[in-house]
Amino acid sequence: MAITYELIKTCKQSGARLGRVHTPHGIIETPAFMPVGTQATVKTMSPEELKQMDAHIILSNTYHLFIRPGHEIVRQAGGLHKFMNWDRPILTDSGGFQVFSLSNMRKIKEEGVEFRSHLNGDKLFLSPEKAMEIQNALGSDIMMAFDECAPYPAEYDYVKKSLERTTRWAERCLQSHARPHDQGLFAIVQGGMFEDLRRQSASELTSMDFPGYAIGGLSVGEPKDLMYNVLECTVPLLPADKPRYLMGVGSPDALLDGSIRGIDMFDCVLPTRIARNGTTMTSSGRLVIRNAKYAEDFGPLDPECSCYTCKNYSRAYIRHLIKADESFGIRLTTIHNLHFLLQLMRNVRKAILEDRLLDFRDAFFAQYGLFENTKGF
Amino acid sequence: MAITYELIKTCKQSGARLGRVHTPHGIIETPAFMPVGTQATVKTMSPEELKQMDAHIILSNTYHLFIRPGHEIVRQAGGLHKFMNWDRPILTDSGGFQVFSLSNMRKIKEEGVEFRSHLNGDKLFLSPEKAMEIQNALGSDIMMAFDECAPYPAEYDYVKKSLERTTRWAERCLQSHARPHDQGLFAIVQGGMFEDLRRQSASELTSMDFPGYAIGGLSVGEPKDLMYNVLECTVPLLPADKPRYLMGVGSPDALLDGSIRGIDMFDCVLPTRIARNGTTMTSSGRLVIRNAKYAEDFGPLDPECSCYTCKNYSRAYIRHLIKADESFGIRLTTIHNLHFLLQLMRNVRKAILEDRLLDFRDAFFAQYGLFENTKGF
Repeated sequence: MAITYELIKTCKQSGARLGRVHTPHGIIETPAFMPVGTQATVKTMSPEELKQMDAHIILSNTYHLFIRPGHEIVRQAGGLHKFMNWDRPILTDSGGFQVFSLSNMRKIKEEGVEFRSHLNGDKLFLSPEKAMEIQNALGSDIMMAFDECAPYPAEYDYVKKSLERTTRWAERCLQSHARPHDQGLFAIVQGGMFEDLRRQSASELTSMDFPGYAIGGLSVGEPKDLMYNVLECTVPLLPADKPRYLMGVGSPDALLDGSIRGIDMFDCVLPTRIARNGTTMTSSGRLVIRNAKYAEDFGPLDPECSCYTCKNYSRAYIRHLIKADESFGIRLTTIHNLHFLLQLMRNVRKAILEDRLLDFRDAFFAQYGLFENTKGF
Repeated sequence: MAITYELIKTCKQSGARLGRVHTPHGIIETPAFMPVGTQATVKTMSPEELKQMDAHIILSNTYHLFIRPGHEIVRQAGGLHKFMNWDRPILTDSGGFQVFSLSNMRKIKEEGVEFRSHLNGDKLFLSPEKAMEIQNALGSDIMMAFDECAPYPAEYDYVKKSLERTTRWAERCLQSHARPHDQGLFAIVQGGMFEDLRRQSASELTSMDFPGYAIGGLSVGEPKDLMYNVLECTVPLLPADKPRYLMGVGSPDALLDGSIRGIDMFDCVLPTRIARNGTTMTSSGRLVIRNAKYAEDFGPLDPECSCYTCKNYSRAYIRHLIKADESFGIRLTTIHNLHFLLQLMRNVRKAILEDRLLDFRDAFFAQYGLFENTKGF
């Protein structure tokens, strides 16, 4: 199998898992946060900068690379690793989430989804087989099955039909996957907010032998309590000897509370997206560097941070760059935010090793100010 | 004196000078090209990347930093070097060029220039004294006198009055310069395209003891032949023991032909500006990476180049990034273009050392295709 999971230990205090995911391009220490590089680049970052902040894996986007530059070009380049000069693991999503987001521009059939390109309106088609063809061409270490991510809220009957189709699609993905020896295919558990449907989806998918399982259809607008309820009913249904990936989640609270519930992998555009608006995450919570009060503040973004940005630049300088629309400012806030979440996960792993993840969570949020933060992170 | 010039040798074939400019923040090997960092950042670049491509000095902009973030903030930060994390030499222009470019928004008086901010329309005033105050606050190694850059074409009488005022302003700059021990002030020779006025300006300014002399008012739209005529009449009037800086010039032909005429320092936004449009300079001339023909070209931008971009990324990848509006693409083209000009100047210095700069020029342009290039570089 291309992907194997090694359980190192379970936190006695929280139940969180410390592990390693072995891939053809190296090891991912888990629980892990995966920076997102949608268009074959983590926005503003060089591969060397990502390595310097110790990112073990990045995520890229099947839909976007299919549309531009086209997966055949990436294949000709020698695959996505070579194309983008990144020699560590890559996970690619299936394109399903993006296609289903194009709500007025797509038509779902059993065969697949007809949709129009968000770039030029071209008529395009994605199916389980096509999603595998694209991801095989990209050569990612971890591929995702082509699924339907049901919206929130959604009717029981709709969600049931949708997850059953997702199961049939998962089977078709398994069958058409051309490179199982060097690319691992993860299935995606759906079922909306309905516990029995989550059980059904998990049961159907785990009856097939995927090297890893994702939980999809969460972080789509539902309250966080509901997300944790679904996690608590779903995670125990997943095999303990495979990695578990909670898709699209990356706020500090969700990384902690997801880890505590047995999740090994996370991804989210949050740190890079907010960085581009000049918003940063610090040990004391959210900091909007555009604010006038930082104009003459010559301290670092976060006095407790050891990232390149905090070691070398002041709030006043970063604010100046962001106000002046200088892209180096966005590099600096992106480096900081990614480093912040990667450092958080290093601390999570250490706390698991030392059986004190619940204590770590309390101490972290006492300073970070969870729930005082109006923007939800 | 804060700035001293050391002549190493003169090229027997071309008359070009090999030298070193000693500054409080280190040595500049000359002839040198200076990358431009208008707003306290060389667009998209980190200081480490500039060092990696062996930039000895960068240029920053008095007008822009005066308007935003304000020179008092830079002073409080400990000066521009500390503010922007650059410990090598910095040259700041005087603000004159920008102010005179605001043609409808400024009023020239003997005392100085009244103008409106291009950002918010605020009424502002720059004078020789104010330009010195700002540059003293910035703490650049090389400051420029506050001058008037006459437009092209301009009437003889206008240019004469203007250069005479520039001389009076240069005297006021000298008198109000508060840090001559650690910041060198260069005067700027004006005089438009009139040889006798250039002689007058050079004579007036060299009668005062500036540590360096710039030639301003060129590369403002005049034909290149005319620019070289002015250089040929002006350079010999400048002291041989001081550095000579040709302002606003950075195309490969002008760097070569300026060096051959005895210029030691150059600056231009050309390499960084064209990089942002996806245009690159290569050993075979201009290459517009957006062109469809590069979509499946997996070779480097320039097979003869040793820069970070050319060592690690293909034309197909860079084209993808530029087409997708990914700022990492602009980082890659900026790195390449700056490296290209800095490498050109290393080659120029080597050719001077070996008394073969004219031969080097011929060989370079035989491959680069001078004059075949419709965009003039």
